Amino acid sequence: MGVDNSSNLVVDGSWVLIAMDSRKRWVVRVRKGGRFVCDRGYIDFDEIIGLEYGSRIRFSSGAEAYIYRPTLIDFIDRVFTRRSQIIYPKDAAYIVVNLGLRSGMRVLEVGVGSGAMASYLANAVMPGGRVYSYEVRDDMVSVASRNLELLGLLEYVVIKNRDAAEGVDERDLDAAFVDIGDPWRVVDPVYEALKPASVAGFFIPTVNQVDRLVRFLWDHGGWGDVRVVELLERGYDVRENAIRPSTRMVGHTGYIVFARKRLRM
Amino acid sequence: MGVDNSSNLVVDGSWVLIAMDSRKRWVVRVRKGGRFVCDRGYIDFDEIIGLEYGSRIRFSSGAEAYIYRPTLIDFIDRVFTRRSQIIYPKDAAYIVVNLGLRSGMRVLEVGVGSGAMASYLANAVMPGGRVYSYEVRDDMVSVASRNLELLGLLEYVVIKNRDAAEGVDERDLDAAFVDIGDPWRVVDPVYEALKPASVAGFFIPTVNQVDRLVRFLWDHGGWGDVRVVELLERGYDVRENAIRPSTRMVGHTGYIVFARKRLRM
Amino acid sequence: MGVDNSSNLVVDGSWVLIAMDSRKRWVVRVRKGGRFVCDRGYIDFDEIIGLEYGSRIRFSSGAEAYIYRPTLIDFIDRVFTRRSQIIYPKDAAYIVVNLGLRSGMRVLEVGVGSGAMASYLANAVMPGGRVYSYEVRDDMVSVASRNLELLGLLEYVVIKNRDAAEGVDERDLDAAFVDIGDPWRVVDPVYEALKPASVAGFFIPTVNQVDRLVRFLWDHGGWGDVRVVELLERGYDVRENAIRPSTRMVGHTGYIVFARKRLRM
Amino acid sequence: MGVDNSSNLVVDGSWVLIAMDSRKRWVVRVRKGGRFVCDRGYIDFDEIIGLEYGSRIRFSSGAEAYIYRPTLIDFIDRVFTRRSQIIYPKDAAYIVVNLGLRSGMRVLEVGVGSGAMASYLANAVMPGGRVYSYEVRDDMVSVASRNLELLGLLEYVVIKNRDAAEGVDERDLDAAFVDIGDPWRVVDPVYEALKPASVAGFFIPTVNQVDRLVRFLWDHGGWGDVRVVELLERGYDVRENAIRPSTRMVGHTGYIVFARKRLRM
Repeated sequence: MGVDNSSNLVVDGSWVLIAMDSRKRWVVRVRKGGRFVCDRGYIDFDEIIGLEYGSRIRFSSGAEAYIYRPTLIDFIDRVFTRRSQIIYPKDAAYIVVNLGLRSGMRVLEVGVGSGAMASYLANAVMPGGRVYSYEVRDDMVSVASRNLELLGLLEYVVIKNRDAAEGVDERDLDAAFVDIGDPWRVVDPVYEALKPASVAGFFIPTVNQVDRLVRFLWDHGGWGDVRVVELLERGYDVRENAIRPSTRMVGHTGYIVFARKRLRM
Repeated sequence: MGVDNSSNLVVDGSWVLIAMDSRKRWVVRVRKGGRFVCDRGYIDFDEIIGLEYGSRIRFSSGAEAYIYRPTLIDFIDRVFTRRSQIIYPKDAAYIVVNLGLRSGMRVLEVGVGSGAMASYLANAVMPGGRVYSYEVRDDMVSVASRNLELLGLLEYVVIKNRDAAEGVDERDLDAAFVDIGDPWRVVDPVYEALKPASVAGFFIPTVNQVDRLVRFLWDHGGWGDVRVVELLERGYDVRENAIRPSTRMVGHTGYIVFARKRLRM
Repeated sequence: MGVDNSSNLVVDGSWVLIAMDSRKRWVVRVRKGGRFVCDRGYIDFDEIIGLEYGSRIRFSSGAEAYIYRPTLIDFIDRVFTRRSQIIYPKDAAYIVVNLGLRSGMRVLEVGVGSGAMASYLANAVMPGGRVYSYEVRDDMVSVASRNLELLGLLEYVVIKNRDAAEGVDERDLDAAFVDIGDPWRVVDPVYEALKPASVAGFFIPTVNQVDRLVRFLWDHGGWGDVRVVELLERGYDVRENAIRPSTRMVGHTGYIVFARKRLRM
Repeated sequence: MGVDNSSNLVVDGSWVLIAMDSRKRWVVRVRKGGRFVCDRGYIDFDEIIGLEYGSRIRFSSGAEAYIYRPTLIDFIDRVFTRRSQIIYPKDAAYIVVNLGLRSGMRVLEVGVGSGAMASYLANAVMPGGRVYSYEVRDDMVSVASRNLELLGLLEYVVIKNRDAAEGVDERDLDAAFVDIGDPWRVVDPVYEALKPASVAGFFIPTVNQVDRLVRFLWDHGGWGDVRVVELLERGYDVRENAIRPSTRMVGHTGYIVFARKRLRM
């Protein structure tokens, strides 16, 4: 199932990352009798089955590649059906750690989108924990369910096709994450669902939304430790005797806002 | 024990984050009959015991603060005895996610230092997984053990007071993380310890070390998907009608290098 | 006269940059019979007079330093009386180039502050050009005049102790620069003063002010090519075999907004 | 004549920036009877001649644009024949200011390339000053000459088709700028050409070259105040109620190294 680390050999049904270089890379499911085709030729899966992960393979054109065990990031990056902006690993990772997650916790998510963040959350709280994801768009619910299924993470996520602004069923949750365009609408239900002193995280594309959300958190009461942060990721081109930051970089993904639930007194 | 989320009430022995503002904040263990003293006055623990997390408290001076349940980051930030540079949450989080960690995995660490990264690793693989940490300096082994003990994470970490360059006992590990000044020395033992196609991460302060490590990985064979990246964290000052990035920021913590184990063919 | 490059020898009355290291550095005026004193000892100016720029000097304590000819940046950095935030070289330089300045041009400035930006502007348009600086605070007018005098740039700057919002005398100016807290107040007078199609630049600390200014420029008509930009400067620590970005960096100075005057039609 | 600000009316022979939006923009020379054609239709120059700068114009398709007086940056950006990497305005501006340039100064340039930096240097020291540019490739000499001619700046630049490593004719120059792949080769001739205590700037793409250059400057003697810096430019997308940093940004252009000439003692 999805990200399985138990075997060192590729078997029928295994997921494999085929990596030619930093851009030509695919995550595929190996099936007996099947074939993988790309612009660099093809390779029969029967040639891959039985190989150890980490092996070199050769396409019909002679092009070489390596096969790796895909990580969660590889899956999200290369297998996910995308119907929405996908959260970047840098942001997802930072949120998971700042929410204080660990195995066994119960987390709320508002706005499941294509399911990328739900995957990171589920990965962090599995196997004992659960993610409760609210999503208004039913097409998104389908896409996210399929994606989580592929990764073997659906069993840890409860997706509800509902507007969290109208209320959240769960109580005493360990953390919450919100990724919708009008996050202030769900601040109250999120508050109700959280354990006291737990952390809520918000992912926000524009400064104006940050401004509005933060003022809402302040004016509304019940929140402390409000913090706004942004991460920039800089890749490096490493060539023989010529290290330099990559010419192109992603200039902005979004702002992250954290707040802690206070008792209203 | 350390980061315990089970109760919403502060009891004798609970760890509490006392937060006055973004800088005046402490993580302390509440003890019956004890007292917490700072430059803003004192507060008797008996006034805190029995309160719900998220409550407001008042110091002798009248200064107010809130009490929160500390997260892993708070613990590392405010409780840890530091004998070495501590890894930043942005870097730790990114590494954990890029190593592909999840509950149940077994990870190698070379260079435990004060135990901060070991804490993040243990937090990610607990309860079924294990971290195997090699550290040459015995004073560091003591400091890290004490720190991990405080957090309740020591049971997931096996610390070995040995030089990983002389060999690593474990085999078939799911990932590895290296944070020492001369990482090329341990590349071979790390290779031996890893499952094929697993990811190794390295934290590196200077460009010259990056250069040397990357060339070593290339020349030595057995490694693919080598990638160098750096994260910048930008905090924002949010005041009424005046949002702006903070004037001061940390300009550099370190470079992160990832590589995947290939079969040597 | 301030930044004078005509002689290679230090003479009585010369300005000299005394540089011990990257932080211990002073710009002083050398006077016969005088003495420079700092925490590393003293040196008599008579020992400096007659030396070539670039020479090494020795303090009473034995500490060594080099004497350089100060540039405009050194003057602003080390001699200026500061009564206000001083613009950083990165921002000043970018503004000068984006305003399209060169020798002979006539420029408007609103908000002279301590005179730092007026110095950069004057330096760019001298000797034939002029800077017209409007400043409401008379204490700032005094400080800026004195600072510009020290640099020998006052003859190129006309400082007016008036509120530009009430009207600007000049017409047909080649460019304008605004650095006040409520820049929208002067947009109309700036428009009147500029040649058609010339560039106005604004320096703005917070996002909220950027938001308001940009909306004002749009709604008010007469402006095109509106552009918002920010510069980050990253210094590097260079030591033997150990290059790395400096740990501390300035995270934010301000946003820069540019717009071009259009005909209102 | 290139960047001419004397008239507010577009006349036969004027250079005009036609700006449709932030990407669709051209700098063209208006000629009686001519026509400008792009993918959005055409416009006859006779419709533009006689208009004031800042006017709105209309293409055959109905598409609208504004005509502005081009600045130096516009010229370099839109008119220059490029045979090499062109320096970015952020870097050029920062270098000009850190070299301490102003009208009347004499500057050395090594590596003229397409002439972009020579344009910025000439613009800063004109009309009394001069730029002395050394370039080994004769095709570059031609390209740069043509580009500088278009801008009306050629009269301030003396281009020499020679290798500066074999010696520089000039003496007592006020500053120097070097932009070649092996800058250490010209450090000595640059030293000879500079006034004592003047500043040399170097533009360097990779860390390895920075490392080598800085070590050369140290080991070779005669240089002080060595400083390495890098500028990042972050653009913002400003839309109604939605300000955010642009998604794409240039991650790296180059490192800038500054050093001051010391007397060798």
